[in-house]
Amino acid sequence: MEFNLADTVEILRRTPSVLETLLIGLSKEWLEGNEGDNTWSPHIVMGHLIFSEENNWIPRLRKILSVRDNKFTPFDRFAQLTLYKDFSTEDLLRKFSDARKESLLTLSTIPLPKEKLNMKGIHPDLGEVTLSQLLSTWTVHDLDHINQISRVMAKQYHEAVGPWKNYLGVLKRPI
Amino acid sequence: MEFNLADTVEILRRTPSVLETLLIGLSKEWLEGNEGDNTWSPHIVMGHLIFSEENNWIPRLRKILSVRDNKFTPFDRFAQLTLYKDFSTEDLLRKFSDARKESLLTLSTIPLPKEKLNMKGIHPDLGEVTLSQLLSTWTVHDLDHINQISRVMAKQYHEAVGPWKNYLGVLKRPI
Repeated sequence: MEFNLADTVEILRRTPSVLETLLIGLSKEWLEGNEGDNTWSPHIVMGHLIFSEENNWIPRLRKILSVRDNKFTPFDRFAQLTLYKDFSTEDLLRKFSDARKESLLTLSTIPLPKEKLNMKGIHPDLGEVTLSQLLSTWTVHDLDHINQISRVMAKQYHEAVGPWKNYLGVLKRPI
Repeated sequence: MEFNLADTVEILRRTPSVLETLLIGLSKEWLEGNEGDNTWSPHIVMGHLIFSEENNWIPRLRKILSVRDNKFTPFDRFAQLTLYKDFSTEDLLRKFSDARKESLLTLSTIPLPKEKLNMKGIHPDLGEVTLSQLLSTWTVHDLDHINQISRVMAKQYHEAVGPWKNYLGVLKRPI
């Protein structure tokens, strides 16, 4: 499937509602269970999504479009562990939804004809990346974390399913 | 995390809305893309969820409670490939939502005190399984297919993300 802005926005637009529908009102065991020491619970993933929203996607898109200063700032994958320590999961879901709305509003005001999609930024580790690759990654990053949250939640019932654990692929997937 | 009926129903109740929020209105490329020959698209997964709903969970729960005839009927993992061939994904989402509502209504009318949770059925391959293991598996099965759908969708952008593909774990996960 080739990158297409409309298809991409269709996913980005719905991620906050998907996560709210999946998580709001669940018990702490579902929200704060993880996959072992130093792994992420759904709660921690929500903090990471907010921090990514505020520091990765639109800021990097602006860097690419600025041309003069197209080097990306390195991203802190662990910022959420301290930044959102005292937030409830519902707070994080609301904050993510607001941040995403703002990102998409900004995105909608930037004209992106085909030639701009090939403009380049410099990623601190990956080197040259294009604007369309950045937008595609934003989308896959959403799906990756929906994937992670569903896996982490499923694993909380690893023992409860008894002999069925051999039939449920999600329980065997590594971190 | 130990099995608990209220926690379990909390997940089962929301799965249809999670899938509707994730899938309704998406383009065919997102809905019908798969992971290669003989693998499932989100559309095919929806058919499997309906067939499971109609043939697995409540029917097997009734078998366990019947005591006299507690042998489960084998399950056809491929029935959806022919049964729902002419349905749109939206039809399938609606049908799954209706089927799940009916299952949960039935479940709510069956008293399940602690001692009943240990009652047993005979699975065609796994042998003895308990009622609480069946209900836990129903829950993990939902999460497993949310996990699968998010992975299959992500993989449609495998090429579009360019060099980022090495950073996005979901793109490297096998079927």
